[in-house]
Amino acid sequence: MAGNTFGTLFTATTFGESHGPALGCVVDGCPAGLPLDQEDIERELRRRRPGGGGAGTTRREADTPEILSGVYGGKTLGTPIAVLVRNTSQKSADYENLKDTYRPGHADWPWEAKYGFRDHRGGGRSSGRETLGRVAAGAVAKALLRQYNVSVFAWTSSAGGIHAPGPGDPRFDRAEAENNPLRIPHGESAARAAEAIAALRESGDSAGGTVSCMIEGLSPGLGMPVFGKLDGLLAGAMLSIGAAKGIEFGAGFSAASGKGSDQNDGIVPPGTDGSVPAAGGSGLPPDVPGAAFISNRAGGILGGLSTGAPVEFTVAFKPIPSISLPQKTITRGGAPADIAVGGRHDVCVCPRAVPVVEAMAALVLADLILISRSDRL
Amino acid sequence: MAGNTFGTLFTATTFGESHGPALGCVVDGCPAGLPLDQEDIERELRRRRPGGGGAGTTRREADTPEILSGVYGGKTLGTPIAVLVRNTSQKSADYENLKDTYRPGHADWPWEAKYGFRDHRGGGRSSGRETLGRVAAGAVAKALLRQYNVSVFAWTSSAGGIHAPGPGDPRFDRAEAENNPLRIPHGESAARAAEAIAALRESGDSAGGTVSCMIEGLSPGLGMPVFGKLDGLLAGAMLSIGAAKGIEFGAGFSAASGKGSDQNDGIVPPGTDGSVPAAGGSGLPPDVPGAAFISNRAGGILGGLSTGAPVEFTVAFKPIPSISLPQKTITRGGAPADIAVGGRHDVCVCPRAVPVVEAMAALVLADLILISRSDRL
Amino acid sequence: MAGNTFGTLFTATTFGESHGPALGCVVDGCPAGLPLDQEDIERELRRRRPGGGGAGTTRREADTPEILSGVYGGKTLGTPIAVLVRNTSQKSADYENLKDTYRPGHADWPWEAKYGFRDHRGGGRSSGRETLGRVAAGAVAKALLRQYNVSVFAWTSSAGGIHAPGPGDPRFDRAEAENNPLRIPHGESAARAAEAIAALRESGDSAGGTVSCMIEGLSPGLGMPVFGKLDGLLAGAMLSIGAAKGIEFGAGFSAASGKGSDQNDGIVPPGTDGSVPAAGGSGLPPDVPGAAFISNRAGGILGGLSTGAPVEFTVAFKPIPSISLPQKTITRGGAPADIAVGGRHDVCVCPRAVPVVEAMAALVLADLILISRSDRL
Amino acid sequence: MAGNTFGTLFTATTFGESHGPALGCVVDGCPAGLPLDQEDIERELRRRRPGGGGAGTTRREADTPEILSGVYGGKTLGTPIAVLVRNTSQKSADYENLKDTYRPGHADWPWEAKYGFRDHRGGGRSSGRETLGRVAAGAVAKALLRQYNVSVFAWTSSAGGIHAPGPGDPRFDRAEAENNPLRIPHGESAARAAEAIAALRESGDSAGGTVSCMIEGLSPGLGMPVFGKLDGLLAGAMLSIGAAKGIEFGAGFSAASGKGSDQNDGIVPPGTDGSVPAAGGSGLPPDVPGAAFISNRAGGILGGLSTGAPVEFTVAFKPIPSISLPQKTITRGGAPADIAVGGRHDVCVCPRAVPVVEAMAALVLADLILISRSDRL
Repeated sequence: MAGNTFGTLFTATTFGESHGPALGCVVDGCPAGLPLDQEDIERELRRRRPGGGGAGTTRREADTPEILSGVYGGKTLGTPIAVLVRNTSQKSADYENLKDTYRPGHADWPWEAKYGFRDHRGGGRSSGRETLGRVAAGAVAKALLRQYNVSVFAWTSSAGGIHAPGPGDPRFDRAEAENNPLRIPHGESAARAAEAIAALRESGDSAGGTVSCMIEGLSPGLGMPVFGKLDGLLAGAMLSIGAAKGIEFGAGFSAASGKGSDQNDGIVPPGTDGSVPAAGGSGLPPDVPGAAFISNRAGGILGGLSTGAPVEFTVAFKPIPSISLPQKTITRGGAPADIAVGGRHDVCVCPRAVPVVEAMAALVLADLILISRSDRL
Repeated sequence: MAGNTFGTLFTATTFGESHGPALGCVVDGCPAGLPLDQEDIERELRRRRPGGGGAGTTRREADTPEILSGVYGGKTLGTPIAVLVRNTSQKSADYENLKDTYRPGHADWPWEAKYGFRDHRGGGRSSGRETLGRVAAGAVAKALLRQYNVSVFAWTSSAGGIHAPGPGDPRFDRAEAENNPLRIPHGESAARAAEAIAALRESGDSAGGTVSCMIEGLSPGLGMPVFGKLDGLLAGAMLSIGAAKGIEFGAGFSAASGKGSDQNDGIVPPGTDGSVPAAGGSGLPPDVPGAAFISNRAGGILGGLSTGAPVEFTVAFKPIPSISLPQKTITRGGAPADIAVGGRHDVCVCPRAVPVVEAMAALVLADLILISRSDRL
Repeated sequence: MAGNTFGTLFTATTFGESHGPALGCVVDGCPAGLPLDQEDIERELRRRRPGGGGAGTTRREADTPEILSGVYGGKTLGTPIAVLVRNTSQKSADYENLKDTYRPGHADWPWEAKYGFRDHRGGGRSSGRETLGRVAAGAVAKALLRQYNVSVFAWTSSAGGIHAPGPGDPRFDRAEAENNPLRIPHGESAARAAEAIAALRESGDSAGGTVSCMIEGLSPGLGMPVFGKLDGLLAGAMLSIGAAKGIEFGAGFSAASGKGSDQNDGIVPPGTDGSVPAAGGSGLPPDVPGAAFISNRAGGILGGLSTGAPVEFTVAFKPIPSISLPQKTITRGGAPADIAVGGRHDVCVCPRAVPVVEAMAALVLADLILISRSDRL
Repeated sequence: MAGNTFGTLFTATTFGESHGPALGCVVDGCPAGLPLDQEDIERELRRRRPGGGGAGTTRREADTPEILSGVYGGKTLGTPIAVLVRNTSQKSADYENLKDTYRPGHADWPWEAKYGFRDHRGGGRSSGRETLGRVAAGAVAKALLRQYNVSVFAWTSSAGGIHAPGPGDPRFDRAEAENNPLRIPHGESAARAAEAIAALRESGDSAGGTVSCMIEGLSPGLGMPVFGKLDGLLAGAMLSIGAAKGIEFGAGFSAASGKGSDQNDGIVPPGTDGSVPAAGGSGLPPDVPGAAFISNRAGGILGGLSTGAPVEFTVAFKPIPSISLPQKTITRGGAPADIAVGGRHDVCVCPRAVPVVEAMAALVLADLILISRSDRL
């Protein structure tokens, strides 16, 4: 499969360059009969738009999606669902000076090394704007997940060096995450991170951060051993997002310095006090008992299969590479040069990565849920 | 694609349960004319065998591979290469007591939740022994990479809480990594980690650790935007390995708290003092200049494409979940139970994960190298 | 892979219903640097439009394609090429009476049996209009084939029971095929077929026919044993076209009653008098001699691989099922009913199937040509 | 996907050369819990063995399959099912004289043109013996189809120019097909065909023929529009069998000279006198009425979807190209030569193609049945 299609049964193909005529996606394999309308997609695209607050680009586009096919009478037809979003705010001239130089930290040079030439305007397809097609496709996947009572919730867990309290902490406030522009689920942390980021922007610099995600409501047993494990597919999906540099599940890297006796999540009968229940237990095969876990250090995944406990992972994002501070680079002719990147750019990618992380997770899950229909006779 | 085939053009399909008759793989899409013999595969399988030193299982098998097809006269035919390894040391009786209980930290319960029943003997296909097919397939991929002067080198970078010096450190000793049973590239660290692990084994516990990997010699531009990015494919491959809980590339999670000015790797003309050269530069398209980098915080990947600098990543592995300390679990009938896992088990997965990490990386690279033949007209 | 993506390395995903907002395609995996403009696509779409002459529908649409992505400065970028064609001439009201009845010979009933409901307007995605996306994608594939001097030429070889002379016959006139509305490469046969079809139309009936195709310039060795053979892929591609009921290669069904001594094509040195040369011989591997054939009953394919001789095949198409003669059917309520199908329909599918056959062949070939870059070290 | 894996959810990967150590397959994606034992596979392999009667090779091998994985306690585990068959009767010396010449009608020359060299012994992987892996995989698919009451039945419908009566003819005798060595379902025709073939063998020549296939019990709606249509997938599967030169469904090529009014199968309520019922009607979605057809010229497929009526198709096979009559060829050095092919060969491929046609059909159906589980919410 060429590189722009994702999935096996429920697939998403995305297309579009930052400053070309349009971007979009084609979702194939979505079951027929799923209620879906333009607002389902538009809502997610709105979440992807720059939210202000100092972290975002000043490029403003309506990003109104048009459903071109696959939906009739408010329901999916079982045929491919194509979604189109026109580019309307291209200021290609902003990028003219970048035509013959390579921005450090961006894909410019390896892209030319691969293809021989590139659309330099806004990074072409290596722009963050590419994720628009992902978010549109993910919105369809989310609509499917709602039928299964599966929820995907992501948030900025750290930004500009400020770490917010996590789900186990009483200060963690899910509603707050969509309230502030950085999508940090704790107002005070959000304010401090905003300050840190403002200072970096002021100095012509940029900030990294992490996005965490929690998936709830998954039936146990989701995932395809051995190369389509749930964590493997999620990791592949997340590291396909620009600027992502790492991922960890559950206890993650800290598990690497732990010992078995504190990392294993003991198994107990469902309903045991203080235990984490395995969701979807009612759909278990005959003779398989329900279960719960005394902890969830595994992050809801064992042997690449969902356990039914919440799936938890965190993705590390590097700072936005476009900075106005001077950097060393070379020209297309091979000469050394100094570069300071202007234009409209985010300073910290995290808040806008949140809906992309959710979209990619939703695409993985929708696919696995359909595939799992063939697990047993 | 079902879950046991990996890759697009250069594919590996693996099969086999821990205590079934055999394990193996079928490699398809390998170009014709590649020199390959049984020793190429056997050498890698030997590296996967328990190395002793306190970290390994005491199960001993010759694991002699048999090439069943695809090779004639010492060269690959262009047809599928099937490799078979018989199981000879099964002691299924060891596992009889586990038939009706679920081991915490293992896939036992979610596996039954998925399939309705399982081969409980040694974990069946969720056993670490499954990686044998991967390593055999990876050996074929490595033979292909040698033709391109691409090398894949992995080592245990931490184990039992002991961190070894990394590639930038003068104490880092590549040869040492294959000298000690933990595969730690620094003798003193290896000795300390061995002690820590011995103590854990003594107490009935187990240890986690990290495996790092460096890929050298890659041409720039390898990877398929947007869903087949080099880091995305590597992350998906690594997280498909049992017990892996996270991965980071280059500066990784530390980049998330950094700023753009220190994370971007400035670009300079090749040959600039102190710079990291982009390998394979001689194969660049016309009019694209050679490049080097003043640092390699990106870990050799930008925008999902290789930069030609060494690709560097680290995988976190949780402690082996089989421990002889008592743990809470439930029986197949749903009753609470205590369990202490005996049998032959590793204490720390890292040294044996090293060749698996290399194998999976080699599979990703072989596939991408073939695919990249179609990058340009 | 879900059902609307075709190919492995060079892929085409199509979308769109007959009376929805738009149809189109996304071509992925096209090498960068290929000259491509809108006229390349528009030219093929024009060939697909109803040509008049009594065989075609009276639906008239400009079918102007818009390239949304993947092309910059007149060359392909290596990124997905999305092409959009708006529906502008929908007369959905024409189909209102078909909402609750199933047209015999159409997909109406099995479509509902599969998906539970359907877009009844013009057949929705089971309409012949669906092929528009294929033709647009095929136009990109054709542009790639031109770089390899590979040509794909299809024509109506029989229609309404009238068989035209074939390539071996001196009356066969390739230029004539694009001159008459039926695309029959022999003026006299075309006139007789037009008469036969006019009579059928008059009586409220429709006509079947065959489309033949010749591919010239292929290098020997194209095809992937064993499940991706050249003839296997072409057969799969052709039978995916609506109304196709059969295909034969070279001597085809007549070979089934022949004997080996007359079916085998003897091999001779290139340049032997009267022999069919194997094209692309200059690209042979070292030590493999050039070859020619004393005949081409194999239709240019042996063991699923191109021989370098012209690839020849014929596809059988059933009569257009939409006829105004009364037919038995049932309603959505299950009651028996009589139906006479009005609306704008072709009477014989062949002339409009010609560019679709070419498009599908081009997609198969473009994919195999890229894949074959990895045949040997 | 490389060329030796077939299918999307239920996949078969085959391997092995005619004179290598072994052949076999890996079936992936088979649901867990399916009863399966070695006899299920051995039975089909026995049907593939030379049946004598003058049409078959004299090579005799036990072809005993060994299940290496994926089955435990007589049921499938949900893991890959690997099946191994050792080659035991290789007489490679028989082929020594063919090492440096190319047999007309075989893949020898294009194979070398592709890969640069080949395993000349018995045709290597281009041998008919390759189908052994397909038949073993098909046996697993058949076991799955039995759970759905779907049957696949193929027979020799013509051989050596003798056509046997078809299913509509009272002389058609299904049981007889497995009684005579040519698998012709009519004793008298079988005797006449045997005579014709014996005469051809006597004269050093070989015979072509056709294999027909009927699939019964399919639910309506099976198939994936638009590139995974039931007929498209079957055609691709059948033309991947060596020596196949064509396929037709239902009325097939004769439909091409027919008219709509006689080709459309009128639709009637189920139970209507003389009608062909649509199987599996009880599984229809809500509000979709049951249906029957007044005829089955469509061969059980409309718009690429099963109608529930029997699926009927016929595959044309060319004569076995190995003949002892002298033929023109060239040597590896490029010199003209005469060749007469000795060795152990079939004279007519049809009887042994019968189980291969069934196996490939079963693989297509098993895959589509699993995929169709995701047709609707």
